[in-house]
Amino acid sequence: MELGNCIIAQSGGPTAAINATLAGVYTAASQKKGMGHIYGGLNGIEGILQEKFVDLRQVLCSEERVRLLETTPSSFLGSCRYKLGQSGHLEEEMARLFSVFADHNIRYFFYIGGNDSMDTILQLEKYQQAHGGNVAFIGVPKTIDNDLMCIDHTPGFGSAAKYIATTVQEIALDTAVYDMDSIVVVEVMGRNAGWLALSAGLARGPFGKPAADLIYLPEFPFSEEQLVADIQKVRSEKRQVVVVISEGIQNAHGERIAEAKTKDSFGHGQLGGAAKQVEAIIKARIGGKVRAVELNVPQRAAGHCLSATDIVESVQIGEAAVDAAWNGESGVMVTTERAKEGSYRLMIGTTDIIHIANQEKIVPESYVNQEKNHLSPAGLAYLAPLIQGEISAPVEAGLPRYAYLSEWQ
Amino acid sequence: MELGNCIIAQSGGPTAAINATLAGVYTAASQKKGMGHIYGGLNGIEGILQEKFVDLRQVLCSEERVRLLETTPSSFLGSCRYKLGQSGHLEEEMARLFSVFADHNIRYFFYIGGNDSMDTILQLEKYQQAHGGNVAFIGVPKTIDNDLMCIDHTPGFGSAAKYIATTVQEIALDTAVYDMDSIVVVEVMGRNAGWLALSAGLARGPFGKPAADLIYLPEFPFSEEQLVADIQKVRSEKRQVVVVISEGIQNAHGERIAEAKTKDSFGHGQLGGAAKQVEAIIKARIGGKVRAVELNVPQRAAGHCLSATDIVESVQIGEAAVDAAWNGESGVMVTTERAKEGSYRLMIGTTDIIHIANQEKIVPESYVNQEKNHLSPAGLAYLAPLIQGEISAPVEAGLPRYAYLSEWQ
Repeated sequence: MELGNCIIAQSGGPTAAINATLAGVYTAASQKKGMGHIYGGLNGIEGILQEKFVDLRQVLCSEERVRLLETTPSSFLGSCRYKLGQSGHLEEEMARLFSVFADHNIRYFFYIGGNDSMDTILQLEKYQQAHGGNVAFIGVPKTIDNDLMCIDHTPGFGSAAKYIATTVQEIALDTAVYDMDSIVVVEVMGRNAGWLALSAGLARGPFGKPAADLIYLPEFPFSEEQLVADIQKVRSEKRQVVVVISEGIQNAHGERIAEAKTKDSFGHGQLGGAAKQVEAIIKARIGGKVRAVELNVPQRAAGHCLSATDIVESVQIGEAAVDAAWNGESGVMVTTERAKEGSYRLMIGTTDIIHIANQEKIVPESYVNQEKNHLSPAGLAYLAPLIQGEISAPVEAGLPRYAYLSEWQ
Repeated sequence: MELGNCIIAQSGGPTAAINATLAGVYTAASQKKGMGHIYGGLNGIEGILQEKFVDLRQVLCSEERVRLLETTPSSFLGSCRYKLGQSGHLEEEMARLFSVFADHNIRYFFYIGGNDSMDTILQLEKYQQAHGGNVAFIGVPKTIDNDLMCIDHTPGFGSAAKYIATTVQEIALDTAVYDMDSIVVVEVMGRNAGWLALSAGLARGPFGKPAADLIYLPEFPFSEEQLVADIQKVRSEKRQVVVVISEGIQNAHGERIAEAKTKDSFGHGQLGGAAKQVEAIIKARIGGKVRAVELNVPQRAAGHCLSATDIVESVQIGEAAVDAAWNGESGVMVTTERAKEGSYRLMIGTTDIIHIANQEKIVPESYVNQEKNHLSPAGLAYLAPLIQGEISAPVEAGLPRYAYLSEWQ
C-alpha cells in the first residue's frame, strides 16, 4: 500500500466521548502498516484551512496518554462551527483544502462530528469526485443530541444520558425533603430532538419508579393546558412533581417556549430559557413553590460520570473509521446497528454520507407513552443499555485528571 | 444508666452528607447499652410537633441499609424550615414538644442542621433550664454553606466543594474548544458566605493552573468596573475566561446583583439570578460570546461525586454527638478543630450552642488574594484536604442506588 499521511479533526459541540473516538482513530491508524504521519487538525476544518496541525504520534506518545484521552471530555484538538463556504468563497476554500492535503500528502481524513460536520465530508467528497484526488473522507459520528440518521445511537449520547438520569434522580431526592407542594422544572439540551430529555425517564426513585414525573419533548406540541392537567394528575398522588423539558419544546404553532422574550436590567431582550418560561407558566397557573434547573454545559462535559458502554463503543467506532478508509471507502460515515435478537449487541458498518448529512433523527412516537409525557416500554428498552457500566478519569488530589494538548505539545 | 429513648431529626437544606451523619448518630446510639427506642423524627421539628416518628431500629435493620444511607444525598427523614414560634404560639409549641418528649420517654434529641436548627436547640435548652426536664439536646452540624461558627468546616461542604471544583474543571474544558473569545459565568450557591464559590478555586486546568480565572464572593464588594478590568487582564493571556460568582455577590452599597429585576413573559418581576445579571453586564460592557451556568440544586445533591473525607467525618461527627449526650452534655453542638501541626487531622469536640446559633462564619480576607478575585495560598491549604478521597453509592443498572425511607418502612 502506498505510503500516505492522515489527519483527524473534531468539530461541533464537544461531548464527554469525542476524545474516546479520537483515541480509537489514533490507535487504529498508528497500527496500520505504511501509515505515515498522523496529524491532529486543530479547531476542525477552520484550523485545517490555516494548516494548524499537530503530530499526534508525538502528542500521544504513550499508552498512558491515549488512555487519559479516552476519559477526557470536550474536544482535545479544539473544535469549530465553521461551515465550508460561509465566507462566500466556497471554491477557493475547497481548492485551498485540497492543496493543503496535497502538500502534506494527506490520504485519509477523519472528521469527528455531527450533522454539520457530515455535510463537510459530503462537500469534500463531491469536490473530489468532480476535480479528482486521492483522499479517503470518513465521517466519524459524535453528538450528545443522538440525532444522526443511520446509527443506533451516537457516541457521546450514552454518557450525557447517564449524567442526566443520575442528576435527575438526585434533584428528585432533593425536591422531596419538605412536607409541602413543590415543582421542579429541569431543562435538558435538545433543540429539535428530545433524546436527552427522554433519557431522564431512566432516572429512578423509590421502588424503582421513575424519578421524573413528566417529560416534554420538542417532537410533540407543548400546551400550557396539558401541562397544568398533567401536573394536577401527578399531584393527586404526590406533592412534589419533577418536570423535565427539552430546551426546544414548542407550542402547536411551532413556536419555541424559550423564545418568549424577557428584559434584562439593561432593557435588552434575552432568552429566559425554556425552564424559566415553564416556571413562570406554573407560577401563574398553579402557584406555590417552583424551581427551574437548567442542566446546561455540564451535561455534555461530565467526564466524572461516563457510561463505559459509550466510551468503549466510541473507541471502537473510531477504530472502524480507520478500517473503512484502509478498505478504500470514502464519503461515508461509520454507522451502528443493534442486534435484533438476544441481549444488547452493536454491529458497526458504514453508509454513504448522503444519507446522513443535514438530516435529523427525532424521537419516534413509539418511544413515548400515549400521553406523550414520558418514556414508553420501547423507549426504555432502547435507552437502558446505553448508560451501563462506569468508567472514570484517574483522580489526582481529589479531582479528575484530564488530558490537555498544551501540556503534551 | 436509666433506660431512655432517643430521637434524631434533620432540618434545613439537604446536603450530600447529612444522611452520613444520620447513619453515624444511629450506629453509635444503637451500640449504647440501655438505649431504648431510636426514633427518626420526620420533617424536623415540624414533624416532631405532630409526633411523626419512625422506628429506626426497624428502618435501618441491616448493616447494608446503614451503608447505603451513608452515600445517599438529601434528607432521608425529610426536612423543614420551621422556626419554633413562627406560628406566634411559642409557649404552646414548647409545652407541646416537651409533652411529646415525656410521652415517648425521649432522653436524647439529636438535631442535624445549620444555623436555624442550632437556634432550635438553643431554645429547647433554655426552655428546659427554665421549666425542668431531662432531655439531652445535641446539635449536629450540617450545611453545604460552611458558615457555622466554632467548626473547622461543616459536614456536607466537602462534597459540595468537590462537585463544584470537578464541574468547573469540566466547564472550563468545554469553554476552551473554539478558537474565539468567550466568557462563561458560573453561579454557585452562597448568599452571605462565599465558601462554595471559593472552592471553585481548587479546579485545575492545563499545567495544574486554576481552571477558574476569576472568583467573586459576597464578602467583598462586587463592582462592574473591577469585573471588566479583571476580565481584560485575563484576556491579555487567554481568550476564554471562566468567571465564578456566589449567588449573593453584592455591590458596595450591599445590594445583591441578583436582585436586579427582570420581567417574565407575563410581566411578573422575577429574579434573573446573579449569573444572568453578570452575563448581561458583560454583554453590555465587553460583548462577544457569554454564557451563564447556574450550578443550582445538583451542587448539594450530587451523591455520585462525594468526598470520602466529608462522608467519613460526617459519620464520625454523628457518632460524637451520641457520646456527648451519653456524657451528660446538653445545649451543645458537635465541633471540629484542625490539628495546627503536621498533616491534616481533625479533632472533634463540643461547644455551647450559644456560640453557634444565629451566627455566620464568612470567608476571611486571608483566604483570598490581594485582588479579592481568587483563592490565596492559605485558602488553598484550608480547602484542599476537604475534597480528598472518592466514595460512591452502589450502582444498579448504570445509576446510583439510593436509600428511600418509603421502601424500608
